[in-house]
Amino acid sequence: MGELSDDGAFVRDTRYLDGRITADGRDGWPVEPGRYHLVVSRACPWANRAIIVRRLLGLEPVLSMGVAGPTHDQRSWTFDLDPGGLDPVLGIHWLADAYERAEPGYDRGVTVPAVVDIPSGAVVTANYPMITIGMETEWAAHHRPGAPDLYPEAWRDEIDEVAELVYRDVNNGVYAAGFAASQHAYEDAYHRLFARLDWLSDRLARRRYLVGDHVTEADVRLFTTLVRFDAVYHGHFKCNRQKLAEMPVLWAYARDLFQTPGFGDTIDFDHIKRHYYEVHTGINPSAIVPAGPDLSGWLAPHGREQLGGSPFGEGGTPPAPPLPAEAVPAGHSPLAA
Amino acid sequence: MGELSDDGAFVRDTRYLDGRITADGRDGWPVEPGRYHLVVSRACPWANRAIIVRRLLGLEPVLSMGVAGPTHDQRSWTFDLDPGGLDPVLGIHWLADAYERAEPGYDRGVTVPAVVDIPSGAVVTANYPMITIGMETEWAAHHRPGAPDLYPEAWRDEIDEVAELVYRDVNNGVYAAGFAASQHAYEDAYHRLFARLDWLSDRLARRRYLVGDHVTEADVRLFTTLVRFDAVYHGHFKCNRQKLAEMPVLWAYARDLFQTPGFGDTIDFDHIKRHYYEVHTGINPSAIVPAGPDLSGWLAPHGREQLGGSPFGEGGTPPAPPLPAEAVPAGHSPLAA
Repeated sequence: MGELSDDGAFVRDTRYLDGRITADGRDGWPVEPGRYHLVVSRACPWANRAIIVRRLLGLEPVLSMGVAGPTHDQRSWTFDLDPGGLDPVLGIHWLADAYERAEPGYDRGVTVPAVVDIPSGAVVTANYPMITIGMETEWAAHHRPGAPDLYPEAWRDEIDEVAELVYRDVNNGVYAAGFAASQHAYEDAYHRLFARLDWLSDRLARRRYLVGDHVTEADVRLFTTLVRFDAVYHGHFKCNRQKLAEMPVLWAYARDLFQTPGFGDTIDFDHIKRHYYEVHTGINPSAIVPAGPDLSGWLAPHGREQLGGSPFGEGGTPPAPPLPAEAVPAGHSPLAA
Repeated sequence: MGELSDDGAFVRDTRYLDGRITADGRDGWPVEPGRYHLVVSRACPWANRAIIVRRLLGLEPVLSMGVAGPTHDQRSWTFDLDPGGLDPVLGIHWLADAYERAEPGYDRGVTVPAVVDIPSGAVVTANYPMITIGMETEWAAHHRPGAPDLYPEAWRDEIDEVAELVYRDVNNGVYAAGFAASQHAYEDAYHRLFARLDWLSDRLARRRYLVGDHVTEADVRLFTTLVRFDAVYHGHFKCNRQKLAEMPVLWAYARDLFQTPGFGDTIDFDHIKRHYYEVHTGINPSAIVPAGPDLSGWLAPHGREQLGGSPFGEGGTPPAPPLPAEAVPAGHSPLAA
């Protein structure tokens, strides 16, 4: 997933498989109901973006989803949650096999989310920012009635601009802190992270959502890091100036989104905690998973309605509840008690 | 310091050197001004008890203090903060040498606090609960005017009773969570810890101090664990149901003590964090020390005066500020800015 620079800083490997699925099929991958399979892990913040966007846009009937288990070996995420350990659509155990189909001898990271072409069993793309933006634009003909516009033309520049800062300092910043191999590299990431969180707190003190007046791609991207903050990043990655629960504006913002259909109902705190604490034995040699934090606060009132705006925009409606087969297991979230 | 049971639980080795320094010298170690040297580390919660009690009772003129550095190797705490790396009173670099003087071939834990007989250079006792109780009782003739009675006869049973529960579930409980080698042993320690903290919150909601109406040995013992909670135990030892700062009664209680002369002025958060995070490479292989948490809250008003009582009891007065040579270095605490 990444490597270290000379001064001990974490550098993410972003050489993803990068096929483009488009409405007009100009790159050889036409949007087509039932043709593709979105592979995710509920543990992973990058994959979580795609799970949320698929839910918000109502793409479940046209784009199936496979859920890898929360832990994996050095080689690959695996479908160990499925009967027989095989993804029912792709018929494989190791996600790496779908990468190998796409590129024989593939030797880079086997990451989620990945969109797989079902007929060939090959990964089309693992470029996660483009996966969600693709769903929002190229798949528009298949959006559910009442779906929000998560990437409105008028706000794209601002969404991209905010998202870039959030990526550098927050989404990737927590990893830069946690995987730093030197005190200096860690502290650099820590200070950039909290400076950006302060900046976000200022911005969100006056507006309900990051850009515009309803949820957009920018909120999805920030949310998937914030929702993991106290459960994982605060302790495991030493992002511990404060907990999210001690940053009032961001905590209320995150709770607001958590309580919005399509966001919180995708969150599996059990998978999230097990993934980081069991897989990163270089950081946590015992592989013991913390019993905390107390998660009950996620359902507390947030009071953000008074800032105006509405989650799904004018004419927008909430998505239906998750498909039963895709519901987060009982006990894995305050929403799935 | 400890070992593991068959089911992965941490078991503290309590076979301490155990000479008794008494007012009448019945065990061969008479209380005598200038004869003994208290060796501590500011990092260590057990030693911190002795630092606080010595301050509260004003024993500085009769019992000198040596401060070991925050980190140590497998063999011993060392006097690496002192000029030339030698304790100026004992003239040694490794505290282990004073253990060896006491018991040739000594092969158990080299722990702090330790009280050393200066003429022979040998450790008399490392039995930390008896070190503080000894100061409170056997050293009474040397207490400063206005010193509190930290172990009042009328309350000894209750102090002992509360302290035993606090020891088992809190003082040692955080270590039992952090050093557990199995998920089961960890969770057992975690649940006992937080159940006891809930019990303490209930008790302290109605009374300013744990036993009686002024500070006692019981408060000293609880404080040295609470003051380390958010800086170390919450993340490093996975004691993460809540931060201390999220448990309102205990947080106010701990702040009240921190702001009481003799308590907070002994706390060196820099030594505390460096010790745990740099020494326990089995838990934190990178030895990177977290930059957080934000400690400014320790100086916030606590409002506990309204519960009645007074810190030093009737006729009691606060201790004078620390000796300049014993002051916590600037930048190591919100009190030493």
